[in-house]
Amino acid sequence: MSVGEFQLIQEYFAKELSAFGVNLGIGDDCALLTVPEGRQLAVSMDTLVGGVHFPKNADPELIAERAVRVCVSDLAAMGAEPLWFTLGLTMPSSESNWLSGFSRGLFKAASEYNISLVGGDTTSGPLAITLQVHGSVLPDKALQRCNARVGDVIFVTGNLGDGAAALAVIKKEFEVGKSAFAYLMSRYYTPKARIREGQLLTKIGHAAIDVSDGLLADLGHICKASGVAAVIEAERLPISDPVKKLCDPDTAMTWALTGGDDYELCFTIPPSRLRVFEDLQAKYNFDCTAIGEIVSGDGVSCLSEGRVVLPPKSAGYEHF
Amino acid sequence: MSVGEFQLIQEYFAKELSAFGVNLGIGDDCALLTVPEGRQLAVSMDTLVGGVHFPKNADPELIAERAVRVCVSDLAAMGAEPLWFTLGLTMPSSESNWLSGFSRGLFKAASEYNISLVGGDTTSGPLAITLQVHGSVLPDKALQRCNARVGDVIFVTGNLGDGAAALAVIKKEFEVGKSAFAYLMSRYYTPKARIREGQLLTKIGHAAIDVSDGLLADLGHICKASGVAAVIEAERLPISDPVKKLCDPDTAMTWALTGGDDYELCFTIPPSRLRVFEDLQAKYNFDCTAIGEIVSGDGVSCLSEGRVVLPPKSAGYEHF
Repeated sequence: MSVGEFQLIQEYFAKELSAFGVNLGIGDDCALLTVPEGRQLAVSMDTLVGGVHFPKNADPELIAERAVRVCVSDLAAMGAEPLWFTLGLTMPSSESNWLSGFSRGLFKAASEYNISLVGGDTTSGPLAITLQVHGSVLPDKALQRCNARVGDVIFVTGNLGDGAAALAVIKKEFEVGKSAFAYLMSRYYTPKARIREGQLLTKIGHAAIDVSDGLLADLGHICKASGVAAVIEAERLPISDPVKKLCDPDTAMTWALTGGDDYELCFTIPPSRLRVFEDLQAKYNFDCTAIGEIVSGDGVSCLSEGRVVLPPKSAGYEHF
Repeated sequence: MSVGEFQLIQEYFAKELSAFGVNLGIGDDCALLTVPEGRQLAVSMDTLVGGVHFPKNADPELIAERAVRVCVSDLAAMGAEPLWFTLGLTMPSSESNWLSGFSRGLFKAASEYNISLVGGDTTSGPLAITLQVHGSVLPDKALQRCNARVGDVIFVTGNLGDGAAALAVIKKEFEVGKSAFAYLMSRYYTPKARIREGQLLTKIGHAAIDVSDGLLADLGHICKASGVAAVIEAERLPISDPVKKLCDPDTAMTWALTGGDDYELCFTIPPSRLRVFEDLQAKYNFDCTAIGEIVSGDGVSCLSEGRVVLPPKSAGYEHF
């Protein structure tokens, strides 16, 4: 069944949430919002195109969940608190089954991060989703890319390479058992935006970024913005058991270094705050691994058994 | 020549403007922004799809100009002051000629409205543009759709029907002379967002909306949100000379009532403030026409020579 634009918005997207600071939500020319007093607004936009960023025939519930999580991950990487999001949804037709699944996934993820849909646009065209997330952060507390300093220890949350492994499995390049399949699909479609970790880091961390284009590329952005270099140790890269079982160690390392779609945080902590950070880790069950150090120079080097492993050619996803 | 994503952003989009409240612009996980103290944030998102909302082979400079103007028009309709915008740009390939034109048009319109590009996303896929504009407005001063009251006089700025006429000319359904062609193309590709008018109206207006889907549909939104009806007089509809010359009066009236893409403001003024409004009109050269009145009931009726003209079947553009 096909539904009209206004009915569509009413039925699938105009959900009242008792959201902080929403003076006027969906349904007027603009949404009207009040940013918490004394805080800066943090905004980030992501576009996900059908057939490019996700399979066109993927479950709409998963597409929507993933879109929200991927975009909220940018708030996590700044240490921001999620507030609101807007949705630009373009689709070839308006099928109620598809929309109902999409809406379910959207609000499932949104309620997990306590972020409210306040506006957007629905248009007819090739399937694509643009989300903008809005959060708040205390002035001078955001985890900017330019804040890494020589001597900082480099950490990543969770595991790396799961996103790339999942894509390889989706493309049927590898076969896996049922539980590994479930693990990888959940890592790909429902990545966990590290909101809590980002917020804890605003107290002690220097720089942070979320790993969306691959560790080498994303850590490279920190290095470039901060005017420093990074040395990481291949043996320390946190790789999940399903990925270790799926492929040879070189492939796993390549996925961990250059695969995108992990949405873990890569961040740096100054040596003077490592003790405090250890306390935080223990107290909050903060899942992360030290993988290297910020040094002077430029670029990212990866060492294995003391020798430089040349980064593979394709160092991070570029859209063009 | 094709250019990579990071180079593309640097070259075409990372323009430093000395913008109010931009603590961190393009290049990190989020932009960091400070909303002027004591004001609400007004946000609106618009998606324009190639082949649906504009011809795919249209001049990229005009596509970008139009996108900014169309989206800023939503700020005008709230009476908000423009601050920042974000851009989600999806394109099949990254051609430097195309990008250079697009960037030129984007910043031309942006500087006209003093609105700064602070972030976004560039992706590969079918041509589409999503913009989000951000503005500010004093609490309780925004021109909400729900504020129309029985007895209000209904006005529109500028002329109606130019957008529809321009599209008919683009589709070669009508032929026009050189100067009419130039007028209609400028009305279609570089519509004037009525920012100044919207801001003046925050002092005395009740409800407002920008005419993007057609007057009947858009005034209908005001009526529905306010729980009132509207009666407008066909003879009062402001129609430009080029449109009058282009077609018969019935077609012109249909375009004025149901054509979209005019981006004029439709607004209501309570009778008690008409005198003050007349002073404003004179002082600021405020180009608008009274076209009818808010009455009790529901729906929008159009009278011609005292008789109800049934609204044509297609009352406003619906995307699905």
